Amino acid sequence: MVSHDKKQPIGIFDSGIGGLTVANAIMRHLPEEQLIYFGDTTHFPYGDKSADNIRFYSLKISKFLLEQGCKMIVVACNSASSTAYKDLLEFFSHVGLFVNVVDPLVRAVCVENKKKVGVIATKATINSGVYERRLKELCPDTEVVSLATPLLAPMIEEGFVHNQVSSAVLSSYLSQPELEGIEALLLACTHYPLIRDDISAYFDHKVQILDSTDIVALEIKSKLKEMNLLNDKRVASNTFYVSDYTDSFEQTARFFYKDHVRLQERDIW
Amino acid sequence: MVSHDKKQPIGIFDSGIGGLTVANAIMRHLPEEQLIYFGDTTHFPYGDKSADNIRFYSLKISKFLLEQGCKMIVVACNSASSTAYKDLLEFFSHVGLFVNVVDPLVRAVCVENKKKVGVIATKATINSGVYERRLKELCPDTEVVSLATPLLAPMIEEGFVHNQVSSAVLSSYLSQPELEGIEALLLACTHYPLIRDDISAYFDHKVQILDSTDIVALEIKSKLKEMNLLNDKRVASNTFYVSDYTDSFEQTARFFYKDHVRLQERDIW
Repeated sequence: MVSHDKKQPIGIFDSGIGGLTVANAIMRHLPEEQLIYFGDTTHFPYGDKSADNIRFYSLKISKFLLEQGCKMIVVACNSASSTAYKDLLEFFSHVGLFVNVVDPLVRAVCVENKKKVGVIATKATINSGVYERRLKELCPDTEVVSLATPLLAPMIEEGFVHNQVSSAVLSSYLSQPELEGIEALLLACTHYPLIRDDISAYFDHKVQILDSTDIVALEIKSKLKEMNLLNDKRVASNTFYVSDYTDSFEQTARFFYKDHVRLQERDIW
Repeated sequence: MVSHDKKQPIGIFDSGIGGLTVANAIMRHLPEEQLIYFGDTTHFPYGDKSADNIRFYSLKISKFLLEQGCKMIVVACNSASSTAYKDLLEFFSHVGLFVNVVDPLVRAVCVENKKKVGVIATKATINSGVYERRLKELCPDTEVVSLATPLLAPMIEEGFVHNQVSSAVLSSYLSQPELEGIEALLLACTHYPLIRDDISAYFDHKVQILDSTDIVALEIKSKLKEMNLLNDKRVASNTFYVSDYTDSFEQTARFFYKDHVRLQERDIW
């Protein structure tokens, strides 16, 4: 394992701008860390792509982030965490630390000791079966039901939140019979925290909603602390790359994240 | 110009399976032609991509289709027709005939001699300004209003048609004040014919709805006839390639097109 310096940045990537929910949580919990974000808007959304394509994209992006000197890489995309995490470790675990968004969420829900939990995510994540598998290993007494909700990410990217459209789409998905009787729902896509309140309201706030924003940020904090790699003074500003720049992605990023984010194009393909 | 044989296939491409609406119309009007379809599902949807990316994808796909021996290439995607058609002619007009989906639709609406027409399409198509420009050239007295409706293509790909979701999304877009008073609406995305009835119903069937399926198929027929390249006897079956195969694309293709379509993966990237 290559040795690291606490001043090195944290890399973080997603298929688009959804992973900014995780970046935001990291900025809140770890304000002294320098972030390099990469949104692969050339291939957004990952949720509809095949597993092998997602693996290749994740390898290329991680290589780019490691070349930028990152000490740690956060796979802030459930589709990539579900399908490519093992490959990333195989290729790069000797040069960087990796954090995915699946495992911390699985641990957090198992602590809750629920009878029945639901998982909603993209098709790629649901088809990987990773949440069901991990939950079965860690808390075998919990019944797990999974549902692909592929229109939610594009809907959020287009700014349809807290309105009639988001309410019709959510109600169409969340009324599926398999979700009946769940005590907790895992938002297994980094876009979904942006409509967390709408989802909670659909269930009259009677179902516990778990997402990976704070949970993953705290995981990163404890992992860096344990390895004595927590930065105590940020020396450079955060950078936000997208592989294909459009005004529309910039507008959506501003809409959700105010002035924190200025996108820059960086084509690594 | 390379000389062609009437037995050569017609190539047709789109970012995904939306262009199958055009392929379907060609099969109906020209049953003796052999089709090679290419859906670039690796980069679906084009509507959110930058113009330069769409140009590069279109060049690569057209080169592939020409190498398969196509006599003609149909750009069955409005985003590609709007941004890449000039580049395709510049690179390849000496080796193949090209048809886009914009010009035939513009001519068809100008014949109607309307006071005010609306255009709905993806962001890439609307941002290109191509419909407004062409309509202004051809029928300067017609007022044209354009509206980007980016959630419609993913909504249709996910099978949300003729239901509460499609009705909420459509009503959110079509109630925009700029569309008030239109006499005709151009469906400037090859996915939209699949919800043509819903759109017409929204306007109480009082607005003329025009799409490019039959119009483009007839344009192809007359163009091939004129050049004496109409096939009189099909010798090979149609082929449907996608650049990234997933079961979900296959299911959607079957859902909309029944048994006509079997997708095969062909990665040209």
